[in-house]
Amino acid sequence: MDLHGGNIYKFQREGKKDILDYSSNINPLGVPKILIDGISQNFSLLERYPDINYIDLRKSIGKYNRTDFENILVGNGATEILFLYMKALNPKKTLIVSPTFAEYERALKNTDSEISYFPLKKIEKENKKYFDLDIEDLKEKSLGFDLVVICNPNNPTGSFVELSQIKELNEFLEKNKIKLFIDECFIEFIANWQNKTSNILRSENIFILRALTKYFALPGIRLGYGICYNKDIIDRINSIREPWTVNAFADLAGKIILDDREYIEKTDRWIDEERRYFISELKKIGTIEVFETNTNFILLRLKNTTSEKFLEKMLAEGILVRNASNFKFLDNTYVRIAIKDRNKNSFLLKVLKKI
Amino acid sequence: MDLHGGNIYKFQREGKKDILDYSSNINPLGVPKILIDGISQNFSLLERYPDINYIDLRKSIGKYNRTDFENILVGNGATEILFLYMKALNPKKTLIVSPTFAEYERALKNTDSEISYFPLKKIEKENKKYFDLDIEDLKEKSLGFDLVVICNPNNPTGSFVELSQIKELNEFLEKNKIKLFIDECFIEFIANWQNKTSNILRSENIFILRALTKYFALPGIRLGYGICYNKDIIDRINSIREPWTVNAFADLAGKIILDDREYIEKTDRWIDEERRYFISELKKIGTIEVFETNTNFILLRLKNTTSEKFLEKMLAEGILVRNASNFKFLDNTYVRIAIKDRNKNSFLLKVLKKI
Repeated sequence: MDLHGGNIYKFQREGKKDILDYSSNINPLGVPKILIDGISQNFSLLERYPDINYIDLRKSIGKYNRTDFENILVGNGATEILFLYMKALNPKKTLIVSPTFAEYERALKNTDSEISYFPLKKIEKENKKYFDLDIEDLKEKSLGFDLVVICNPNNPTGSFVELSQIKELNEFLEKNKIKLFIDECFIEFIANWQNKTSNILRSENIFILRALTKYFALPGIRLGYGICYNKDIIDRINSIREPWTVNAFADLAGKIILDDREYIEKTDRWIDEERRYFISELKKIGTIEVFETNTNFILLRLKNTTSEKFLEKMLAEGILVRNASNFKFLDNTYVRIAIKDRNKNSFLLKVLKKI
Repeated sequence: MDLHGGNIYKFQREGKKDILDYSSNINPLGVPKILIDGISQNFSLLERYPDINYIDLRKSIGKYNRTDFENILVGNGATEILFLYMKALNPKKTLIVSPTFAEYERALKNTDSEISYFPLKKIEKENKKYFDLDIEDLKEKSLGFDLVVICNPNNPTGSFVELSQIKELNEFLEKNKIKLFIDECFIEFIANWQNKTSNILRSENIFILRALTKYFALPGIRLGYGICYNKDIIDRINSIREPWTVNAFADLAGKIILDDREYIEKTDRWIDEERRYFISELKKIGTIEVFETNTNFILLRLKNTTSEKFLEKMLAEGILVRNASNFKFLDNTYVRIAIKDRNKNSFLLKVLKKI
């Protein structure tokens, strides 16, 4: 089974064209026009090595996050930053809040770290189902570890831990010399995220992972970044990293799209409306359990079938969804779907009701 | 001092615009038009993750090198492939033929390898100066090592080891269980390189490094590749590598430009003419020693000044050259310059004669 969503190439090689990809969580507004214009006018950027220190890029990302460029690390997608952090920290024991994105584990396999998993709790409250993080329990269980990893909002559950809770957790962890790694690659889909990000804490104990992949619909460009207030960790990462891992167009993208107010406002309107609509429509379907989401994808549990059979049926209708059964603590009744534009979401709802 | 050429950004930040960059060895024909058209028509590629297995890209590179795609590894520039190979092989003792590109050493610092250096010999023959590799001596000195690293053609000396010698060396090394890593990132600037590449040997003992950076003038796009006939090493690299390190446009570039006969023929004509002209004109200048080159850059030794003073003077004239004094076995009288188009080369010659 694939570790990730989005592998439409395999299906295309098998002759299946025109697949609607609901397995990959990308902003349906697509590539920002400002970037298309920017690239079209700057092809000669390819003829030079990018700035090996990416100063202007880091300044732009710093401005977007209201922080100094010296606290910004850039990389070839969030993946590179994740792998570098794990390698630089080289924790002996790591606790990963799960179910979650599989790459944390893969990145840790490049170190000597022992890995344990802290389970989120499935909760039902006021007719809403979601996965909840029990902070008190996590604090207790984290003792003896060197690192706690949280994806926030979490992939694939869509759940979000509020800043006050992160603050409380981090204070406890810092006191006990346990680092905190927070993946915020989906945080921009939360309204008013600037007031909810862990970046506000400016803690030396926290490392924040971000990317342009999801919110700006640019998985192909490969630009991720880290926010870090720990000079020692930044130095360690810089001492092991490879040069020029961010390509010239990713460099350009990070300099021009973060200022694109029009794209940002349009995206915020779309996700707010469409998330509400999609969730409420999905809940009307009796054969699936729908988990509340704070971001741009939704975890579903199938009541009457397995993920695999469901995938097959959906694929026959031209829709690729994410089999979520290989996430830790989930079983073969879970699937994950993206939130797309109204037309596509309506089509998916129609197909769901049919099958 | 900078480890690499091409850092014009530093000078630009200091207010120096319009610098002629002779420190970076890029084909002056610039970005292939076929790629500009290809990107312009395919911006939506950015909205998807690239094929995680890069099958079509590897097939295209395989065809270019007359080999199966399964022997091709692709990466974020040659750098990623280099770092992955060193990490996967994890040699105990490595012998690097020097002076050469500094990144081999940096990549090995990510392993536990001890590093030693085998010096090229400065030779003068028939009024030609060059750096020569003594294969018999290298064979003898390589015993006890796990890996020998050769850059061929070599950066910064421009020297090239013929295939017959590589074959002889490799047979000896293989018998003694010593792997051979050959960086061929500049080989396409040699006429008829298809008959001179180590790829012809199809040896399980050799790993070949290549890139689209230099010959196709695309340092900004970040696409490198390895050619490897050793299944065990390929598997080891695949087990530690990160996903999607090649961005969507690099993926596209590798699929369309390797077939661009017009660009390739134009480049071959340019380098053949310009190399001959530039070398012969440089040799007329009494204050510099000129080393013969097989590729698109030239190593110079200054008879009456230091590299640093020379750099300063050139910079005052708007030309950035590469200070080569930090290469192993070279001293502070060496600089490296690229070969560019006739206009620029003539301008550089004029400036050289003046200062």
